[in-house]
Amino acid sequence: MKFGSIATWRMSHEGIEDSLELLKNNGTSNDAIEMIIKHVEDYPYYKSVGYGGLPNIEGILEMDAAFMDGDTFQIGAVAGITDVCHPISVARKLSHEKFNSFLVGQGATKYAMTNGFERKNMLTERARKLWEKRLDDMAKHSLSPYDGHDTIGAISLDKTGSMSAGTSSSGLFMKKPGRVGDSPLSGSGFYVDSDIGGAAATGLGEDLMKGILSYEIVRKMEGGMTPQEACDEAVYSFHDKLTKKYGKCGAMSLVAMNNKGDWGVATNVEFTFSVGNDQNKAAIYIANMGENHTTMIEPITQEWLDAYENRIKAPIK
Amino acid sequence: MKFGSIATWRMSHEGIEDSLELLKNNGTSNDAIEMIIKHVEDYPYYKSVGYGGLPNIEGILEMDAAFMDGDTFQIGAVAGITDVCHPISVARKLSHEKFNSFLVGQGATKYAMTNGFERKNMLTERARKLWEKRLDDMAKHSLSPYDGHDTIGAISLDKTGSMSAGTSSSGLFMKKPGRVGDSPLSGSGFYVDSDIGGAAATGLGEDLMKGILSYEIVRKMEGGMTPQEACDEAVYSFHDKLTKKYGKCGAMSLVAMNNKGDWGVATNVEFTFSVGNDQNKAAIYIANMGENHTTMIEPITQEWLDAYENRIKAPIK
Repeated sequence: MKFGSIATWRMSHEGIEDSLELLKNNGTSNDAIEMIIKHVEDYPYYKSVGYGGLPNIEGILEMDAAFMDGDTFQIGAVAGITDVCHPISVARKLSHEKFNSFLVGQGATKYAMTNGFERKNMLTERARKLWEKRLDDMAKHSLSPYDGHDTIGAISLDKTGSMSAGTSSSGLFMKKPGRVGDSPLSGSGFYVDSDIGGAAATGLGEDLMKGILSYEIVRKMEGGMTPQEACDEAVYSFHDKLTKKYGKCGAMSLVAMNNKGDWGVATNVEFTFSVGNDQNKAAIYIANMGENHTTMIEPITQEWLDAYENRIKAPIK
Repeated sequence: MKFGSIATWRMSHEGIEDSLELLKNNGTSNDAIEMIIKHVEDYPYYKSVGYGGLPNIEGILEMDAAFMDGDTFQIGAVAGITDVCHPISVARKLSHEKFNSFLVGQGATKYAMTNGFERKNMLTERARKLWEKRLDDMAKHSLSPYDGHDTIGAISLDKTGSMSAGTSSSGLFMKKPGRVGDSPLSGSGFYVDSDIGGAAATGLGEDLMKGILSYEIVRKMEGGMTPQEACDEAVYSFHDKLTKKYGKCGAMSLVAMNNKGDWGVATNVEFTFSVGNDQNKAAIYIANMGENHTTMIEPITQEWLDAYENRIKAPIK
């Protein structure tokens, strides 16, 4: 029986490993998605998701997350939520609601508080220091404040053929209060249909929501493309189209998996991801845009991983 | 030269008329969209958009809006904004931002306030009374609180071939604080590409965001379908699919226009809309779901209009 998981960025790897163990032991894709994403939300050195995430311009850590069940199309989402350990778990619970399944701002935080979700000050001392440093750099060097939009986006397939998708992000570093990216938006940040497959995105949310790429990839897989063909065709065509129409195209990286456990990715920046299925154990790869609407994918090197580890834990000067 | 506008519900009619005059005199589709929607936002007797809109469960009127330029794909959106006269104008201004173009909750309200948008207490005495009455009915009769999700969604085409889309809504009556529907979500609530056409939605946002129908309709028009074929095929296929997968499908009504000014609609409930172009002056129609994935469309009757007028202005008992 087929099963598998794929997710954006190196940070997803440990969660992907755990999810494959779960799926092998007949766990559900819904549980797998929550497991993958909670892992990243918990880890303090990933500065764009959950605990340790970087705050908005006012120093407040606002988080976005979404959950989708590919069997029923149930979706739950939150945006601008604060002080909650696991935004993905709040999103999953909201997916069971017929009404009020997407909550933002104080309404989202209040829902989490009154429904028993674990509260926590999610702003680490390290993140606060990075915020102070950036404010300083902005004042001194007129530096553009924005970067760091490494959303975790994940797709899982379980042995029964059910599929699920999820995302979680603290959004753009130094964003304005209340800014929402693509992560909680179905079609843009994620989409999954157990009859076909799913896709999820990371990158500049403001541009991703112009392209509805997660849905587009699922639709192309429905039309018969492999996940890799669907990713290449959707992402690079839209990259070209937006560059032509808008004059520029922000970073965008998509991952996809179909209902056979086959996967694909496409990206217009250097992009890491983790993937595994019933045939191949979890592994980290690095992808770059190739020529003629193709993607170059290589196994990650130990050198890259070591440098990454040093970078995310480096002292803040 | 071709031009035209289409928008959801009878309430859009006066704005559609004005927009056709504007477009005839070489106005832009961007200006036409803002004009159509502001008209509805201003009118106190439309209880699901702007001034006079119905509040959330706590008696606070929270509004959602979005704007999309089909030439550049620029999108601006707000959700859960309060105390601002014209959410659509805030969304339009945000569409010029490279970053932070979708703002929610207090962040959205703060942006409007600090950028000079007209402030206003948008909760009318009539809306407050309806809220009190509903609270009372809920307590006495265990009535489901939710109804009233008549979003204004509009598409315009100007003589230069530019197209635009916009939406504005106070969302579900009695919604939880922070609840967001499909209106500010690109792909679900609206989508427009000047090379093809555009579409916009009204209905139960929680279900519309499961289907990404505005984008799907644009994509089907790109594939060669007329707007009517695209609406019929997208809406009724998804209605069937969601009913099968989720056991039910909420109200959904979509309008579309292509870059020749041809239009279409599809709906699974009784639905009114207004449309006009360079060939035909603005007119209100009523649509219902027909057999075999078709839509029955008839001109509105004076009888219907009179009953509507009486209904929206009836004393609150």
